[in-house]
Amino acid sequence: MRECIRKGQFTGPTGGLAPGYVQTNMVILPKEQAYDFLVFCQRNPKPCPLLEVTDPGDPEPKSLAPGADLRTDVPKYRVWRNGDLADEVTDIVDLWRADLVAFLLGCSFTFDTALVNAGIDVPHMRDGQGANVPMYVTSIPTKPAGVFHGPMVVSMRAIPREQVVKAVQVTSRFPTMHGAPIHIGNPGAIGIRDVNKPDYGSVVDMKDEDVPVFWACGVTPQEVCLASKPPFMISHAPGHMFITDVRDEDMAVI
Amino acid sequence: MRECIRKGQFTGPTGGLAPGYVQTNMVILPKEQAYDFLVFCQRNPKPCPLLEVTDPGDPEPKSLAPGADLRTDVPKYRVWRNGDLADEVTDIVDLWRADLVAFLLGCSFTFDTALVNAGIDVPHMRDGQGANVPMYVTSIPTKPAGVFHGPMVVSMRAIPREQVVKAVQVTSRFPTMHGAPIHIGNPGAIGIRDVNKPDYGSVVDMKDEDVPVFWACGVTPQEVCLASKPPFMISHAPGHMFITDVRDEDMAVI
Repeated sequence: MRECIRKGQFTGPTGGLAPGYVQTNMVILPKEQAYDFLVFCQRNPKPCPLLEVTDPGDPEPKSLAPGADLRTDVPKYRVWRNGDLADEVTDIVDLWRADLVAFLLGCSFTFDTALVNAGIDVPHMRDGQGANVPMYVTSIPTKPAGVFHGPMVVSMRAIPREQVVKAVQVTSRFPTMHGAPIHIGNPGAIGIRDVNKPDYGSVVDMKDEDVPVFWACGVTPQEVCLASKPPFMISHAPGHMFITDVRDEDMAVI
Repeated sequence: MRECIRKGQFTGPTGGLAPGYVQTNMVILPKEQAYDFLVFCQRNPKPCPLLEVTDPGDPEPKSLAPGADLRTDVPKYRVWRNGDLADEVTDIVDLWRADLVAFLLGCSFTFDTALVNAGIDVPHMRDGQGANVPMYVTSIPTKPAGVFHGPMVVSMRAIPREQVVKAVQVTSRFPTMHGAPIHIGNPGAIGIRDVNKPDYGSVVDMKDEDVPVFWACGVTPQEVCLASKPPFMISHAPGHMFITDVRDEDMAVI
């Protein structure tokens, strides 16, 4: 799959591809901002669970995918300048610099698979729902670090009432993939006015017996970028993740 | 307890003190080496589970113990210059500088309590054994980052054969306190010639039915310091930990 992406043969979203393999969010920053971002991730492990940090100028994620190239192996990239989205591209070979550091962050695709495997009915994983989870900017502030600050973004899964406990258990096994929910039941309590109007992603059908359950989301760094305006940043395009060589189950703590 | 330590009324080891509260390892480095050490911790989360990073020059660990002062609230400190132990002191007020960053790392005292609470017979927690766990330098290399490299240090607990599985389960709940064991049963497989000759800590009685179980250890940064020779570093003295305001159970993932 990564070879197809590298050759430009595939530029779409990666949800459901290479099932069983960990996919990650990606943030690339100049070394000058990298220290602050590392501390930011340490202080906000639920939205920003750090899986790998590359050496400056080295585009190879030696731990999660030896031999891969982060300049070409993500289907779609976003280029940010001073906090504004400047461009969307399918490789960053021409933008790469000797001072760039890549951060790979856990992604909820791993626990979505685990939820489905556990027999939990996750709306955006149902046939025809398009596998795009609804996401919301909350009133929960992240803990600032250096130049980085901003609100936490969450994803929502509408879980049948009798499966909520199981959903907590299943996702708790994956602390580096956002882990257990941060809130169950009351969108207003975390600053979400209307669950039918997500800030990112798509609305999903909610049944009467469904409870809205919220998890910290890897889109948080992009919202933090909007707020913090670093001079230069590259990220994956939402849904267009980096596919690693690591199996989902290798990331489970129990 | 921290007030006693701050006033110099207590300068001893902290094992067993303030039971139920998380204690941490501590490493203090100039900002210049802090980035490399942050990446080192990210790459070696089992021996170096990072719980807090302070802002440069700020001795207050705002997350784990608001109001505490890391210059006075550790019972005993070690001062390292170019990788050599230069001094052992009971406060670092005169050594503090505007560019110093403190790293607080998880400590196995938390899961020792959990093991005992789970009914597991941990030798160094038995009466009269002095609560000092045996520790060994292994043949397992840490993943290097910038200037930091060196071998992993492990602690050993001799666990009765029929309780080994339970010990894995209990410690798995605390991934930020070194988590699950890294090896069970064969000291030679990880480069330990003789379990009766630990590199740090004390020998403990092993019974015939005991299995040696090894966990990654927070002494690793000190061994890495010996190998990597940063110009200036301060750490806690072994066993003389920083006591936080956070409860052990707050750190459990499930």
